[in-house]
Amino acid sequence: MKGFAMLESNKVGWIEKERPIAGPYDAILRPLALAPCVSDIYTAYQSQLNYRENLILGHEAIGEIVEVGEKVKDFKTGDKVIVPAITLDWKSNESNNTFEQQIFGRRYSNIKDGVFSEYFHVNDVDMNLALLPEDISLETAIMLTDTVSTGLHAVELAEVDYNDTVVVLGTPSISLMSVAGAKLKGARRIIVVGTNKESIDAAKFYGATDIIYHKYGPISDQILELTKGEGVDKALVSGMDSDAITNAVKVVKPGGYIGNVNHFGSGERFSIPRLEFPRDTKLSIMGKITPGGRKRMEKQIELVTSGTIDPSKIVTHVFHGFEKIEDALNMMKTKSLDLIKPVVIL
Amino acid sequence: MKGFAMLESNKVGWIEKERPIAGPYDAILRPLALAPCVSDIYTAYQSQLNYRENLILGHEAIGEIVEVGEKVKDFKTGDKVIVPAITLDWKSNESNNTFEQQIFGRRYSNIKDGVFSEYFHVNDVDMNLALLPEDISLETAIMLTDTVSTGLHAVELAEVDYNDTVVVLGTPSISLMSVAGAKLKGARRIIVVGTNKESIDAAKFYGATDIIYHKYGPISDQILELTKGEGVDKALVSGMDSDAITNAVKVVKPGGYIGNVNHFGSGERFSIPRLEFPRDTKLSIMGKITPGGRKRMEKQIELVTSGTIDPSKIVTHVFHGFEKIEDALNMMKTKSLDLIKPVVIL
Amino acid sequence: MKGFAMLESNKVGWIEKERPIAGPYDAILRPLALAPCVSDIYTAYQSQLNYRENLILGHEAIGEIVEVGEKVKDFKTGDKVIVPAITLDWKSNESNNTFEQQIFGRRYSNIKDGVFSEYFHVNDVDMNLALLPEDISLETAIMLTDTVSTGLHAVELAEVDYNDTVVVLGTPSISLMSVAGAKLKGARRIIVVGTNKESIDAAKFYGATDIIYHKYGPISDQILELTKGEGVDKALVSGMDSDAITNAVKVVKPGGYIGNVNHFGSGERFSIPRLEFPRDTKLSIMGKITPGGRKRMEKQIELVTSGTIDPSKIVTHVFHGFEKIEDALNMMKTKSLDLIKPVVIL
Amino acid sequence: MKGFAMLESNKVGWIEKERPIAGPYDAILRPLALAPCVSDIYTAYQSQLNYRENLILGHEAIGEIVEVGEKVKDFKTGDKVIVPAITLDWKSNESNNTFEQQIFGRRYSNIKDGVFSEYFHVNDVDMNLALLPEDISLETAIMLTDTVSTGLHAVELAEVDYNDTVVVLGTPSISLMSVAGAKLKGARRIIVVGTNKESIDAAKFYGATDIIYHKYGPISDQILELTKGEGVDKALVSGMDSDAITNAVKVVKPGGYIGNVNHFGSGERFSIPRLEFPRDTKLSIMGKITPGGRKRMEKQIELVTSGTIDPSKIVTHVFHGFEKIEDALNMMKTKSLDLIKPVVIL
Ligand SMILES: [Zn+2]
Ligand SMILES: [Zn+2]
Ligand SMILES: [Zn+2]
Ligand SMILES: [Zn+2]
Repeated sequence: MKGFAMLESNKVGWIEKERPIAGPYDAILRPLALAPCVSDIYTAYQSQLNYRENLILGHEAIGEIVEVGEKVKDFKTGDKVIVPAITLDWKSNESNNTFEQQIFGRRYSNIKDGVFSEYFHVNDVDMNLALLPEDISLETAIMLTDTVSTGLHAVELAEVDYNDTVVVLGTPSISLMSVAGAKLKGARRIIVVGTNKESIDAAKFYGATDIIYHKYGPISDQILELTKGEGVDKALVSGMDSDAITNAVKVVKPGGYIGNVNHFGSGERFSIPRLEFPRDTKLSIMGKITPGGRKRMEKQIELVTSGTIDPSKIVTHVFHGFEKIEDALNMMKTKSLDLIKPVVIL
Repeated sequence: MKGFAMLESNKVGWIEKERPIAGPYDAILRPLALAPCVSDIYTAYQSQLNYRENLILGHEAIGEIVEVGEKVKDFKTGDKVIVPAITLDWKSNESNNTFEQQIFGRRYSNIKDGVFSEYFHVNDVDMNLALLPEDISLETAIMLTDTVSTGLHAVELAEVDYNDTVVVLGTPSISLMSVAGAKLKGARRIIVVGTNKESIDAAKFYGATDIIYHKYGPISDQILELTKGEGVDKALVSGMDSDAITNAVKVVKPGGYIGNVNHFGSGERFSIPRLEFPRDTKLSIMGKITPGGRKRMEKQIELVTSGTIDPSKIVTHVFHGFEKIEDALNMMKTKSLDLIKPVVIL
Repeated sequence: MKGFAMLESNKVGWIEKERPIAGPYDAILRPLALAPCVSDIYTAYQSQLNYRENLILGHEAIGEIVEVGEKVKDFKTGDKVIVPAITLDWKSNESNNTFEQQIFGRRYSNIKDGVFSEYFHVNDVDMNLALLPEDISLETAIMLTDTVSTGLHAVELAEVDYNDTVVVLGTPSISLMSVAGAKLKGARRIIVVGTNKESIDAAKFYGATDIIYHKYGPISDQILELTKGEGVDKALVSGMDSDAITNAVKVVKPGGYIGNVNHFGSGERFSIPRLEFPRDTKLSIMGKITPGGRKRMEKQIELVTSGTIDPSKIVTHVFHGFEKIEDALNMMKTKSLDLIKPVVIL
Repeated sequence: MKGFAMLESNKVGWIEKERPIAGPYDAILRPLALAPCVSDIYTAYQSQLNYRENLILGHEAIGEIVEVGEKVKDFKTGDKVIVPAITLDWKSNESNNTFEQQIFGRRYSNIKDGVFSEYFHVNDVDMNLALLPEDISLETAIMLTDTVSTGLHAVELAEVDYNDTVVVLGTPSISLMSVAGAKLKGARRIIVVGTNKESIDAAKFYGATDIIYHKYGPISDQILELTKGEGVDKALVSGMDSDAITNAVKVVKPGGYIGNVNHFGSGERFSIPRLEFPRDTKLSIMGKITPGGRKRMEKQIELVTSGTIDPSKIVTHVFHGFEKIEDALNMMKTKSLDLIKPVVIL
């Protein structure tokens, strides 16, 4: 079968591999929709650490089950399903520990082939997959696999509360879901850094109350001015930019929280401003990758079917045809001006 | 009256000032015991930010009440009392917010004259002071004002739990109380960096199970080796050293906590190792200064009178006479080899 | 001066008392608006425990400052202010402890005369009062003193989260604010027991998604049926009805929370169904009275001025003239059919 | 094979059953040690609700693996292992939710045959079993399966903290481990109700500071007297006695916690004293059964091997031979005077 892979460090391309085989609790899927992610760019171009070669990329997919293990109870061939980016192996001791679950749950294009493939493998499907409801489009559903889950997780880590003033810093797609999540939890004021027109419109749609711009000066200064010097209650940080955490530290109030789902993609260290953080050593930085699994996915599906969150506004570009995953990924790498998130429909 | 002050940046010395006056909820005390602190060194020599001049230093004191406001209910002239380093103004709106309490509670040698003085002022004494029990010595009691409270607070921030493996990094005096606090909360393994013989003996007394040394290589490598590559559950960071937080980030397990009561005393930024922190963005850094006030102090007194914690092992040098505060502070600055904490008895 | 008082157990009426005097941190107010509360009924008619006589009733008031202590910094004569039902004495040791604050903060008609009086006393006004903004009506503002604060507190205790299914059980007025608070925190489904048309309309306005009725069978059966036997994530209990907590225990899921701000007004014991609670001993009951103080009140004011919550829908009856407090209280006692909450404007 | 079973309601006896078969992730064990539990009495004699017949009793066992599924990675035939009373099915969707895990984890003598059998089945052994270290005796190890885990869980639920005053109410065996856990977390004062000499000696060994006796009056009165009317910070409730929770409510301070691992074994309702609970509606009742699984068991093993907790003091009676499980269970039922916990060694 054909897949789009990280061939070696800084080199991606098409590859031919054996179709995977399902164990008794597993399934094989063919993709119905795929989406590239900043993490794919990070994996392919910026991480010299865990050297990987000829590994198929991708961890965001909607699929149809074409083969299913004999022990699977809740799914059958032909089911259309949402595949969480984080798929835990519930049958090993790691599943006893929440944090290990998440780290070992990053399987796709990390410890096994990813989903940019004619067929891909899902482990422990009764605990990981969720049925795709008929009334959710593929473009919407694929946003649930990672973008919605990670965006909401920043909100959860920072314990956003009603009446909070919140700043959201980072990758547009995840940030927009952090905006929607902050509003959902009752934040009164939500400050966002504007980039392109598309993301600004979407930010307002999801509940942003204030847009600030790089061209008007340092981000932290603008936030402090907007809040009359008080700073914000919570900062939600995503993406690959270590400036984001620096700005967050500068503007969060004493007693505030930073919810971090950032990857900090380059350089050996990132630094934190001493004068703000330490003087009154005052805040909490919580960082984790998003939890995965079926129950969380089913909860997110309810957010969509009840009309609470409509993730479709994040999707700015829709490609058609499996081979277009190459163009979509490239668009992510070059960060075309009007991009938030591209999707490939098969 | 006479006091030992920060005269200007990087210059300390004796000064003559007016004796303070007590408001209706306040008191004037004469010191019975005084102790210098790393914070005093930080204030006098390393903080060019909040410029202060002719401000009396010191925030650790045991005193006798010589004058008391008419609205004070629970204390009278002649009472011997323990003065928390953090004395909140409970009569202003700041007292509605825990974090503001702590920031504005840093009054001594920050927004008013400190305690290295023939007389000093205490605000809101019913809510801030605690009676000195007869069976606690002055040397022991003065450790409660800041060292015990701050050391325990690192333990509280990191949510140390039974069976935890903990590493304690930072200033010997505060660290030792973090060791005692970690043991009190059931930590099974407590790793400490050995400096001088005095602090190593004290660390073992308070419950350290493993001592590591700078001379045997990078601290983080040694901790990882000791824990078979697993790292520690919690790291407790105090003092003025930004390497401490870097090491903490390197050795804390996924899902672990860093409890930080550090001041990060120099340089414009401190940096965090990208490769450890970000890849699986995994931990929580909680930072605050210690809470103050009477109830917390009374709780700490119970820890001493019940024999749970004996802070006297931290005191390595006892001076006699008010004017010896200069020598004690100087000893703190030059970090004499056998020093943990000096005390001046009047 | 004249006041409406609890004269003896089960007997209320007008009384003549001395006008109170303000201490240095206090103020004397004349009421602009007053509201009776279920707690007043409880105090006057159902609590044989703390015997009180000739005590002026009432703890919900908007007032104008007519006299102010010399130490008060942020308020002056003529200021129109919102008075929290819970006014803490921040100048005593009790203020070091959150729970004691709340218990000792119940001053009005408990340890001192209440607000149903020509003049009433407020302690520690810098920490307790909040300025009434010009664009908030008296009817709306007086709901903030207790009803909004207590209703939101049930939501806080139960840790209502986004996507939760919530049931709200208890006194209509407080319950309606629990509905608004649950919606504000992202609850997806909010179940309410319908009583009169006014409270049903208001419940829908504040975000209730399902209304159930006593006439259709046991409340707990209906809730379980609505949730396909799964039960609810959270139950919010207010008022004086011990059936409410029984129903809550029966319908909350394993791992769920009950947020209780109930007074449980009569009988010596209330009982909990053994078969539901114990079998899998599974849930958490959190109970507290609402926090008080200025900061919380200012936060609630922001909820109103930002249009987030409009408490005016709770007010079903408006009386005019001080002496009408008697009618309003009586209406509360007899529970007239179309009542949610009466207000008296002076 | 032979097993000791609940034959019908209120009737126990020996039964002949088929030896169970191991699935790919499972194992079959033969018992090395067995212990009866108050839960077995509850199942057999007091619970008319979930009618069960011919179900083998028992959930506390140390065993030797005699057969192991092909997918099991960490265990092999001949391994001696500790079997947690709660064995989760990690391969179904229930494992995504902590609370469901615990409820569905109660498999033995609930939804499948228990361990009082010549052979018994363990599901998902990589996630549930823990290797028995050579230096832990069978008598000690079997206490880890339920008694230690449940006793510690009460401590965890109540968030026992250093310096706390704690009362422990309930079944002697579990209570004693709550005493040990409270001490481990730094409780300063631990009050226990004395029954027989054995449990009093053991309570003192584990850290009890005060013993009270039924003969000297109501338990709650004695506790209030001991604490000068202040009450306790935390109450730890275990066993089958609904008086325990009533007493707990009466003596816990405002802001305190009750950690409940009680089964409340009889009657349709249990009641809570209205006057104490409601007046200042003030406390939190957390109730859950103990978590299970391998990681928790391995953590408990470390508590024993490090000498932190020695559970052997709970074992008052040791029987030898499989068939003695009948005598041991009967001893539990009749509550012989000098009993804490009996064990059967095979
Ligand atoms: Zn992604
Ligand atoms: Zn200090
Ligand atoms: Zn009220
Ligand atoms: Zn048991």
